[in-house]
Order: sequence, then structure tokens, then C-alpha cells
Amino acid sequence: MRPSGRSLNQLRPVSIETGITKHAEGSCLIRMGDTHVLCTATIEDKAPPFLKNTGLGWVTAEYGMLPRATNSRTRREAAAGKQSGRTQEIQRLIGRALRAGVDRSALGERQIVVDCDVIQADGGTRCAAITGGWVALRLAVNKLLKAGTVVSDPIIDHVAAVSCGIYAGQPVLDLDYAEDSSAGTDGNFVLTGARRLIEVQMSAEGATFSRSEMLTLLDLAEAGVADLITAQKAAVG
Amino acid sequence: MRPSGRSLNQLRPVSIETGITKHAEGSCLIRMGDTHVLCTATIEDKAPPFLKNTGLGWVTAEYGMLPRATNSRTRREAAAGKQSGRTQEIQRLIGRALRAGVDRSALGERQIVVDCDVIQADGGTRCAAITGGWVALRLAVNKLLKAGTVVSDPIIDHVAAVSCGIYAGQPVLDLDYAEDSSAGTDGNFVLTGARRLIEVQMSAEGATFSRSEMLTLLDLAEAGVADLITAQKAAVG
Amino acid sequence: MRPSGRSLNQLRPVSIETGITKHAEGSCLIRMGDTHVLCTATIEDKAPPFLKNTGLGWVTAEYGMLPRATNSRTRREAAAGKQSGRTQEIQRLIGRALRAGVDRSALGERQIVVDCDVIQADGGTRCAAITGGWVALRLAVNKLLKAGTVVSDPIIDHVAAVSCGIYAGQPVLDLDYAEDSSAGTDGNFVLTGARRLIEVQMSAEGATFSRSEMLTLLDLAEAGVADLITAQKAAVG
Amino acid sequence: MRPSGRSLNQLRPVSIETGITKHAEGSCLIRMGDTHVLCTATIEDKAPPFLKNTGLGWVTAEYGMLPRATNSRTRREAAAGKQSGRTQEIQRLIGRALRAGVDRSALGERQIVVDCDVIQADGGTRCAAITGGWVALRLAVNKLLKAGTVVSDPIIDHVAAVSCGIYAGQPVLDLDYAEDSSAGTDGNFVLTGARRLIEVQMSAEGATFSRSEMLTLLDLAEAGVADLITAQKAAVG
Amino acid sequence: MRPSGRSLNQLRPVSIETGITKHAEGSCLIRMGDTHVLCTATIEDKAPPFLKNTGLGWVTAEYGMLPRATNSRTRREAAAGKQSGRTQEIQRLIGRALRAGVDRSALGERQIVVDCDVIQADGGTRCAAITGGWVALRLAVNKLLKAGTVVSDPIIDHVAAVSCGIYAGQPVLDLDYAEDSSAGTDGNFVLTGARRLIEVQMSAEGATFSRSEMLTLLDLAEAGVADLITAQKAAVG
Amino acid sequence: MRPSGRSLNQLRPVSIETGITKHAEGSCLIRMGDTHVLCTATIEDKAPPFLKNTGLGWVTAEYGMLPRATNSRTRREAAAGKQSGRTQEIQRLIGRALRAGVDRSALGERQIVVDCDVIQADGGTRCAAITGGWVALRLAVNKLLKAGTVVSDPIIDHVAAVSCGIYAGQPVLDLDYAEDSSAGTDGNFVLTGARRLIEVQMSAEGATFSRSEMLTLLDLAEAGVADLITAQKAAVG
Repeated sequence: MRPSGRSLNQLRPVSIETGITKHAEGSCLIRMGDTHVLCTATIEDKAPPFLKNTGLGWVTAEYGMLPRATNSRTRREAAAGKQSGRTQEIQRLIGRALRAGVDRSALGERQIVVDCDVIQADGGTRCAAITGGWVALRLAVNKLLKAGTVVSDPIIDHVAAVSCGIYAGQPVLDLDYAEDSSAGTDGNFVLTGARRLIEVQMSAEGATFSRSEMLTLLDLAEAGVADLITAQKAAVG
Repeated sequence: MRPSGRSLNQLRPVSIETGITKHAEGSCLIRMGDTHVLCTATIEDKAPPFLKNTGLGWVTAEYGMLPRATNSRTRREAAAGKQSGRTQEIQRLIGRALRAGVDRSALGERQIVVDCDVIQADGGTRCAAITGGWVALRLAVNKLLKAGTVVSDPIIDHVAAVSCGIYAGQPVLDLDYAEDSSAGTDGNFVLTGARRLIEVQMSAEGATFSRSEMLTLLDLAEAGVADLITAQKAAVG
Repeated sequence: MRPSGRSLNQLRPVSIETGITKHAEGSCLIRMGDTHVLCTATIEDKAPPFLKNTGLGWVTAEYGMLPRATNSRTRREAAAGKQSGRTQEIQRLIGRALRAGVDRSALGERQIVVDCDVIQADGGTRCAAITGGWVALRLAVNKLLKAGTVVSDPIIDHVAAVSCGIYAGQPVLDLDYAEDSSAGTDGNFVLTGARRLIEVQMSAEGATFSRSEMLTLLDLAEAGVADLITAQKAAVG
Repeated sequence: MRPSGRSLNQLRPVSIETGITKHAEGSCLIRMGDTHVLCTATIEDKAPPFLKNTGLGWVTAEYGMLPRATNSRTRREAAAGKQSGRTQEIQRLIGRALRAGVDRSALGERQIVVDCDVIQADGGTRCAAITGGWVALRLAVNKLLKAGTVVSDPIIDHVAAVSCGIYAGQPVLDLDYAEDSSAGTDGNFVLTGARRLIEVQMSAEGATFSRSEMLTLLDLAEAGVADLITAQKAAVG
Repeated sequence: MRPSGRSLNQLRPVSIETGITKHAEGSCLIRMGDTHVLCTATIEDKAPPFLKNTGLGWVTAEYGMLPRATNSRTRREAAAGKQSGRTQEIQRLIGRALRAGVDRSALGERQIVVDCDVIQADGGTRCAAITGGWVALRLAVNKLLKAGTVVSDPIIDHVAAVSCGIYAGQPVLDLDYAEDSSAGTDGNFVLTGARRLIEVQMSAEGATFSRSEMLTLLDLAEAGVADLITAQKAAVG
Repeated sequence: MRPSGRSLNQLRPVSIETGITKHAEGSCLIRMGDTHVLCTATIEDKAPPFLKNTGLGWVTAEYGMLPRATNSRTRREAAAGKQSGRTQEIQRLIGRALRAGVDRSALGERQIVVDCDVIQADGGTRCAAITGGWVALRLAVNKLLKAGTVVSDPIIDHVAAVSCGIYAGQPVLDLDYAEDSSAGTDGNFVLTGARRLIEVQMSAEGATFSRSEMLTLLDLAEAGVADLITAQKAAVG
């Protein structure tokens, strides 16, 4: 029934390859099927100005897409002279999601910038960016811990995300582009390792949905995120 | 318990004054407590280029805040040279929400632009913008129907929105600024007159939430939106 | 003779409603006929850098128009990414005009920003912005005086403005949009309570004018401004 | 009394050198004392879109300053990424002034762009730009007439401009930078060959002025412009 | 002697992996040591406007760097709102270089856009981009030939590039970052398969060089490019 | 054979007029035939931030073109809101070239900004800008030496530039626009008074060139630069 032949509650094949760039304090390439996102984490010695003398740190994210990550070429945002509303919405979401898994007091007055750049897109890039971004963040924090710069682990729990939606009348897990572009209702779910919710974004375009549909999608998401967290654990060793 | 003295499930006083500007095809000033948003709807004869020859129309929204709508002055986005990520995120939400209540085929190849400008902010501006924006949209569409330009009513149902959150450990309806700025979890719920969901955005900053908290907030939202729709009905006569 | 039926030297109905927003140190909504401008004054503790250690303060202004303040929708400047030349010209004029009524030494090293946002436009928005902006400024300065932050009143005199022009061959006071768009010659006159001139801007588009026409318009303006100052006095009590 | 030793009603030495660039349809370098402005006029075959099928032409102007035209280096607007409010205000004035001397119907549906670039600034650059801009415009129109592209001369009259102000308590003509920067009141006057007024811009910064001072400055301006028009006539031969 | 232990005329290990993204008409990941560049070629049905009705096609390039491709994080150009001068210079070079190897008449009125995005930088990114960009271009053109859209091969010859410089007094081939940042003189050489020169850019910063040094570097470059072309041949099979 | 009737190795008439603006520390107008560039040098007391506490100074350049310096009007970059890639490439070249002739340690922690603005263009503007820019720089440094601000002359040698190319199959010196626009291969050569090379930029568009052609052009350039340096010497006395 699904274009990919997957069952309704089946994730795409997930792989997370770490140490992908030599410069970044943490990095990985996450692949969820044909969606490939390169995530790097950069440690900066200073927190943003609004946190001066609070003892708190910050985690923020930026998101981008290579021009030909998409089926037809997308105009380069650097050439256009600005980031689209979609890009800004996504990178704000990634930052919020990752911060929810961090004890900013334990991090101390420093900032970690997580860059998520989509190399190839096939739906679900923001969820892949969160799941992979957490791995890059984890690896960068490991460096801080190893160096003794930070003594108490600021990472509270895993953070991972997956999309779900109603495709052809059926609730499905982890939509690919073919499903995403024809689903009337879809959502992104960000959860912790302890199955607590961080962010739920459900949205209908040209449609509406019911409370019970929402809960069905949440069920799918909880199971999917559990598998993603297993993959995170394997990746960070 | 609440700073305003409201009970947990109590909306702020709502008023919707229509016909607020002489130029717009539809307009209203919506007040939810101290949050005041001016909404206008503009009918444009052409749909956006990507809809050419599809027979479908479009509804889009833009959002802004006067510099001193806030407690301390916010820099004017026109002077800054760009709209913030927050502004873009909000206006994309308003547009999506309103489109979900419109039969774009009945609207035909034209566009309605809903401008929502916050005159005074005290939390919940995006929800007020959606609720007031629908009234402006309804009034503009009434003009199209009266003139015979459009023959079948493209408005399928009411669309209204309200925020809910966990404040001081309690689920509360319709957060004002004092509540919003200290709530760890909050959400925006967009619903139709038929109690169908259009958009759910729940988000935790420095916290997480459970499925049952989510459902409690949804309960509050459903009741709140019902009252807002009553106010919409009174406004559009 | 005039589209509105007014006599040649008749102002439109003027109203100035103060305390329009709870956040601003001073605010009013000025209505000159169908031209409605929301004016707020914000006190900032620091003067601009070029005044550092001079003991002098600054008054500046920003001007904007809601997209549907006009008959057809105007593109939002924040979305366009820059303020138009017209906007910049107007806000520079408002700032200059208001500064001429202020003893910047008595104000001390602080800045007052006057925001003038046109809610509905029907000609003469820059003059309404100056007249209303002065009221917002006066109210904000009253707060400084009351708090003892400033001891000697920095407001030297009233500042108000009105437009005049040659319409259908006749000199007329306070042009509305219908008149303004067909007048070959028009001007904006900014005066003080003592009838001193602050700014005279007369301009012909596709026409020229004589010295005696200039003086006739100035006569009209002096009388009009006197009435506006009466309205200012009533508003600030 | 004046820093330059000039008498109160004395212009700076004026020279207008034509044919300064080989590419432009009309060009001149105007020198008013140490203020040097290069003016070029470019004929474009099309009028702006808003004039389509009206039979009317357009004259517009752009203004710029080389970075080191001023005493200390000014940041290049191209590097800053936008034209300042001052630049936009000036170029709008130049365009309006020149259009007032043109029969746009005789010009036909084409546009003439007058570029005024300040090579060296010493006060009064906008007035020099108008006076020199008219010469460039006249020369470009001569080409159109000679080629028979335009049959009836669209130039109605000369247009020239000069500044006047109250310096050290005295009304003076043609302020240089030393005078301009300390004058409380100054104005720019644009007149035709027939002594008709096109634009009067009088402005006080930290001061006010009376009707009689305004008229004294106008007297000075009328005489000054007459001399400038004599220089224009000599230049265009 | 060289930080990497390479001999003076030794390239870094080169690998070119094709088919790296499923969407692009041609793509490869080129690695020259630790410099990794992802190159994609996009076929567009239309040539740029200035080629309309000439029968000629166009090849252009865009260049970017992921923020953490560098040792310390570089600000994202999309967030900065513009491409740096360096970026623009490089992408113009890549485009010119690739066009020199193309018969634009055989290509016909279409455009191929080559995107070169640096995943990891260690010196020589522009040369790697040219060498890898040619492979992406070749693969995309192969698709046009196979589909019969283009009948005569528009690719005239291979195009590849390498840098050379004077490091620690010695002429060396293919500078890595450690060498590049301390070399007083360096150059980029673009050549064809037939050893013809397309572009020579030699530049001294805080130094100068002689004609004979220039020729020595050219000798190194010729040999290096020959090896790169061997790698291209292997890659495109 | 050449459109101008010059012999293959003949420069256009060169003139360098100094002291062209009263404000700049150094200035000249260089004319190479119909290419006229105004060069000014501005001394700034501070070096750029990246040189703080290094004891080193900096020389940088900016380049611009008046809109009607070209045959058809070019859009003003300040109005377009950004500098083109071409402009940025050229100004980076000028800065690099001039720095190569300066002992930055002798200059001390200050910056000299060289502005090169093309008044009239007829090919070879970047070379004229380098040759004239050096004269402006020399004159500004003379002021520093005369004032005793700098004690040891930071100017190491002359720096001048000329273009050469293959036109109609022949190697020619100092291309004008007619030649430049049809030459398949051309180059810019920057040399010192001691005939050392600073920058060689050779480029083919729709063509390739051989090593021997490169050397022939270099021969032409060496002779041409020698003549330009003679002109520089005459200009700076």
C-alpha cells in the first residue's frame, strides 16, 4: 500500500555514521532511507549575550539544504540573500528540541551550535536533523567531559523525532516525500528516551483531523522514536 | 492562582469589532484581554502563479507587530530589513489555519490576503490573529458572494485558535504574557466549528510533558474555541 | 466645491485619544477625518552614540503604514526588506519637527523614539503623525518629570503640522486623499504654539507656484495649526 | 563675516563643463565653489510600467557620493547594501524638480535618468545636482530633437536651485559646508527661468524662523537662481 | 619537508565517487586528501535571457561551504544574507573554467548549473570543485546524449585544476591548508586534457615572484593535472 | 589592425593628475585613453580588528563605477543593494596588489583605504585602478612621513598593472573595450618597479592558450608596466 512497500508502522532503514568531518567537535551523517543529513556540533566558548552572568549555556541550530538535495534544484539561500520562512521555522524547532534534553546549568556559559545540512532530501528532513543533531551534540559534549571543561553531564536524555501522517486514509510512520506530499494531515513528534514529549506539531492542509487520529499517530511515533534512540545508542557507543 | 485571577478554564474577555477600516474588504479588531490585533482581508483578482489554470484559489496571511505593542520597544522589522523567524513562523501558521477552513475550488482563482497586525501584545497573539483573521476573511468572502463574483460559499466552517499551557503545575486556558513567559509547556490549538483539529503545536522549553497532559490541554482548548466561535458568530451577524 | 463639502479653510474633524496602549510611556490615536495614526513614545535610557558625553538628548521618529491602510493593499515593508524612500523621508521630517520643540539639554542624555503607524490613510498622514507624535512625546516627558528623572521641562512649545494646497485652482486647508492626488501644488507646514515656523515643504508636481500663492497657503496653515494645538491641549489636559 | 569672505548675497564661483563623459546622452561637471557634481542624462526607450499607454514620459534621478567626497570617508552605500534615507530624499527631490520643467506629453513614452554623483562635497550638493542635472537633461533632449525622435521640445523652462540660510544671525546665499553645519535654519529653493517656484524646503534644527525671515531667504534665492540660469545658458550654448 | 610528508611534486590522494545523490543529473564527491567537495550538475531547459535566440547554451557554477567545513565555524552565508567576495570570485572562476571545455553551440539553448559544496576543507577547494564539477557536468551531458536531446557531444575536452605555490622556499604541488596559509606565492592552474591553459591565477601576498618561478609552478601543475584527468577518466568510465 | 590604430605593443595615452580632491590624503585621476578612474587614499588611525596588537597595518581597496561610466547605463549598486561579484573580485585584486608593495610593519597599526571609482570606462579599469591607486597611496604615505607619524617609508616599490590579450590572433598590449570584448584570451599583470610579479591572471573564455602565448603576453606586460611606472614617477614628483 505504501509507495515504498513498507508496513504502516515501519521506519525507513536508519544509519548514523559518526566522525564524518575532522574539524567539528561532534559530527554524523544520518540516513533515513533516501533522506541524508550531515550534522555537526561546534562548541563556542561564549554563551549568547542575553545569558551573560546567568551561569547558563545555550544550544542552537541552523538548517540548510544543498541546492540539489531536492528533485528539482532549489535556489541557494545564500544567493537569494535570505533564509526562507520554512528554513527558519525548522532551525528554531531543532534548537528547541535539543535544548529540552540539556541541563543548561551543567553546560555552563558556553554555546553549542548544531548545523544540519541536508545532502539529499526525501521527506522528514527536520526529524532526521533532530535525531542526528542529538548525536553530534552528544559527541561534542563528550569532548567537554573528557577534557574536564564540564564536570557534570549536561545531557539529560536522548532526543529524537519522527513524522507520522494520514496517507491514503491510513496512519503511517515516517513519511517519505511521496507520502508527505499527498498526506492531508501530518505531524512531527519529538520525544525523549523516557517517552516524554518535547514537541508535537500536527498540521492539516486542506483537511482536518480528530482527537483519535492524533492519538493513533502518537502511538506510531512513540514506537518509531524508540527505534531511533536504539540507533543513536549504537552510534555513540 | 492565576496572575489575572481567572479560573483555570476561563478565557480572557473577548471582543471582536468589525468594519474597523474603510478600505479593506473585511476587517476587525479582536481583543483578547490586553492582546489587541487588527485584522484585514484583501481580495486580489489573481491567484499566485503556482495555481495558474488550476481553478483553485489561495488564502495567505501576513503578521506584524507595532514596535511598541510590547513592554519594551521591539525593533521595527522594516527597519531591520527582514522579518524575524518568529514572524515568518506565525504568518505561515495563520495562513495554513485559515486555508483549512476554505474550499479553494469554490473560491476560484483569486487570493485573499489576511493581514494581522498586533497593536498591543499580552500573550496569545497568534491565536487572536487566527480567530480575528477568520472574521475578516468571512466578511471579505461575504462581499464576493453579495457581488455574485463567487456563487458557492467557499467558507466551510469556522476556524479559531487558543493557547493552553501548564502554568505553576496547573493546566490553564488562554495564557497571558505573565503566564506564557513562565510556562514550561504550552500549545496552540486550532479547531473548526465542528470541533475538528486543524493544527496542534505543543512545545516544551526546558521541560517535557506527558500524553495525558496533552489531552488535558486539548480538553481546555476545545471548550475555549467553542466560546471564541460564539464570539465570531456574534461579530459577523 | 471640495469633495468633502468642507469650506476652503476648514480642517477635517480632529480627535486625539490618549493612553491607547498600556505599554508605551506616551501614546495617542489621532484622527484627522479618515486619516488615523497611532503614535507611541518610548523612553530609552541612552542617547545615540554620537551624543555620548555631550549632556544632550535626542528625539527620533519612525513611520509605518499597515498594508491595508490604503485603498489598495501596499506591500509590507518588512516583507520587502526595506523602508521606501517615502517612508524614510517622512520619518526624518517627523523627527526634525519634534526636535525643534525640545530643549535637548534639559532632556539629558536619553532618547525618546516616537513611532507613528498609520492605521487608515486618507491624505495628510505625515502631518497627523507630527501633531499626534507631539502628544505622545508630551505624555512621555510628563512621566519623566513626575518621576523626577528630568527636572526642567524639555518641551519648549507645541509642535503641530498641517498640509495645504491648490486644489481646482483654490487654496485649501488640510487636503484629503481625493484633493491631494489631484493638487498640482501642495505643502506641509510645521509650526509652534508661538506661530514660529519649523518646517515648510512646498512642492509642485507638473506645475509651479508663485510667492503669493505660497503666502496664502501659509495663512491657511497658521490658522489650521492653531486649531490643532487647541486639540493637543485638550488631549494632554 | 562669512568664512569664505563672500558678501551675504554672493554665490560661490560657478562653472558648468559639458560633454564630460563620452557615453552619456548629456553630461556636465558642475562646480559651485568646492562642491563638484558630475551629472549625466541617460535616455531609455521605455517609460516606467505605471505610464504604459498614457503617452507620457518620465524623468527620474539618482544621487550618490563618492566615499571620499567628504572630509572624513563615508561608507560606500553599495557596500552597506542600501541607500541612506538622506540619499533617497535627495534623489526624489532632484527628480521632482526636473519633472516640473518638462512637458511629459511632448517627451513621449520614454524615460530620462539623471545621475548626479558628488565628486567633492562642500555644502549644497543637492542644489548643484539640480542645476547641473538640468543641463545634462537639456543636452540629452537636444539629441532627441536633433534625431527627430521627439518633435516638440519637452523642456518648458530652466530649473535651478540654491540654498539659503540664517548664518550667525544673517541671511546668506549659497551656504558652504562651514556655514551649513552651524546654521539653525536653512532652505533649498528650486525655481524656473520665469521665477516660478517649484520647491521650497525650509527647515530648522534646534531653532525656528519667522515668515519674514522666510521671505528674505526667498529674495536671496531668486537672485541666486537667476545667476545660475545665466550659467546654464552659457553652458548649453 | 612538507607537513604531510609528501614529495614536492606529489598530489594528495584523489578519489572521485559518482552518483552521490539520486536527484541530480550528474553528481560526484571528490576528495583531494582532506578536502571533500560535493558536486552536482543540474540541467535546465532554458538558457539565461541574454542568450535568447542565439542557439547557444550556458554553463554556470555556484560554490558554498558548510559552516563547519573549516577548522573554526564559518558563519552561514544564507544567515549573513549575502555571499562573500571570496565565494563569488570562486564560483565565477569555476563557471569560466567549465565553459572553456564546452561547445555552447552543440549544447543548444539550455543551461547546466554546477553546484560545488565543500563538506570538508583543507586547502585547494576551488581546484577540487573544478575537477569534480567537470565530472558532474560530463555525467549530466551523457544523459542529454543518451536521451537524444543533444546529438553532438558538447564536451570538447577534460578540464581540471590544481594549485601550486612556493612553500618554505620550495615549489610544491597541490597545497594543503597548512602550506597554503604560509605560502607567500601561490597559483591556481586550470588546464585541458590537451594541456592547453584555460586559467592561470598567480598571486603573491606580502611577497613577489619571478618569471622562472612562475614557469616552475606551471611545470608542476601540468603534471598534476594530467594525473587528475586520469582520475576523471576512471570516474566517468 | 587594432581598432584604435595603435601598434601591438603600444599603450594608450596615459595621464595621471594628482590632488584631484581636497579632502583625501592622496588622490589622482588616471586616464588610460578613454578609461578614467578617480583614486583616493584615506588614512584611518586604526587597523582592522584581526591585526590588533600585531604592529602591522593594512591596505585595502574599494571599487565602483558610476552608472553611466559605461556605454549603456549600469544599475547603481547602491540601489541594487549589493556589490556584484565582478566588483568584489576587482576590489580584492586591487587591495592584494597594493599590499604587495607595502611593508605593513613600517606602516604600523593603521589602515589606508584606496577608493577607485570609474568615471568613464573603456576597458582595463582594474589595471588603471591599480596604477592610479598606487599613486594615491604614495601621496597619502608621504603625508604620514612628513608628519613624522611614520618614520620609515612603508612603500617598498612601485606597483602598476596592465592588461594584454590575444586579439584577432595577435598578442596586444593594453586592450580597450572593443578589443577586450572580442578577445578569447586576456590577462592582467601586476608588477613592481623591479619587474617582479605580484599577480598574473590569465583567462580564456571560449578558448584556450598555450604556455608560449602566456610568455609573449608577459613580455608585452613587462614593457607596458615599465612605461606606467615612468608615468607614476612623473606624477608623484
